Amino acid sequence: MTRSSFPQPDPKLDLVLERVVPVPRERVWTAWTTPEHVKQWFTPAPWSTVDCEIDLRPGGIFRTVMRSPEGQEFPNLGCYLEVIPNEKLVWTSALAPGFRPVTRSAPAGDCSDLLFTAVITLEPHENGTKYTALVLHKDEADRKKHDEMGFQAGWGKALDQLVALVKRS
Amino acid sequence: MTRSSFPQPDPKLDLVLERVVPVPRERVWTAWTTPEHVKQWFTPAPWSTVDCEIDLRPGGIFRTVMRSPEGQEFPNLGCYLEVIPNEKLVWTSALAPGFRPVTRSAPAGDCSDLLFTAVITLEPHENGTKYTALVLHKDEADRKKHDEMGFQAGWGKALDQLVALVKRS
Repeated sequence: MTRSSFPQPDPKLDLVLERVVPVPRERVWTAWTTPEHVKQWFTPAPWSTVDCEIDLRPGGIFRTVMRSPEGQEFPNLGCYLEVIPNEKLVWTSALAPGFRPVTRSAPAGDCSDLLFTAVITLEPHENGTKYTALVLHKDEADRKKHDEMGFQAGWGKALDQLVALVKRS
Repeated sequence: MTRSSFPQPDPKLDLVLERVVPVPRERVWTAWTTPEHVKQWFTPAPWSTVDCEIDLRPGGIFRTVMRSPEGQEFPNLGCYLEVIPNEKLVWTSALAPGFRPVTRSAPAGDCSDLLFTAVITLEPHENGTKYTALVLHKDEADRKKHDEMGFQAGWGKALDQLVALVKRS
């Protein structure tokens, strides 16, 4: 199958976290694609990921349940769009498993109402792996909302947790 | 890349057109994936398809412009999700090219507000090709709206036009 291509990120619509991490990309891939690993790093502490379901193919489920420090649970459901082992992982919250369009049932302003597509790219680097998380939104308002929810700090801390997990396992 | 899988159609949410057509599946594939062909069959007459743009890979654009008998134009923008030559073509109107979630800017009730994912499957058959168009909606209301817009008659007549095009070319 022909690979997808992506245009340059649009600074008005997209958020990007780019960093070199000191672990091999095969280990980063495993951390992203194995439920027992995802549960250990995906959510910045003191939040936690208490459940994760993965069917690693286009249209397959990517489901997580996050728990707040107060014990409230937040389910997230999406599906994979592109799966190139050790190189690129793309999923979206705008489609349910099997590529079905989603119902936006959340009240306006609820964070779970935020639809986005995430493109995780892993490239070899002399110091480990060049890690890029590109997150696409439908409009400037959604980008701003995601930014103000703490995208950079949150995704950055989660990546720190991923690296720590890889190093100790 | 691992292929996607789809659950059985859900009669409450999905619409299905299934038919055996007397032409080889390679010709059906070409008719679906070549802009000059799409423009000749895609829209039931007296409507017409006056423009078509195709980038045949996951995330690639699938754009058409339909024209009513009165001359009003209706653009449709979507992106491909899965491309398996001569076998399966999946695209959605819920994502723009590059997998970006779409803005639903159409007024409520406008047909262009309808989000769906289409799965076209072609299988060899002793009389030509078993053709299945499975269309996934987010909820029963969208399925009903699409059904009442004339899904069976419209997609069926377009398929007749496709077969006629293949036979004469």
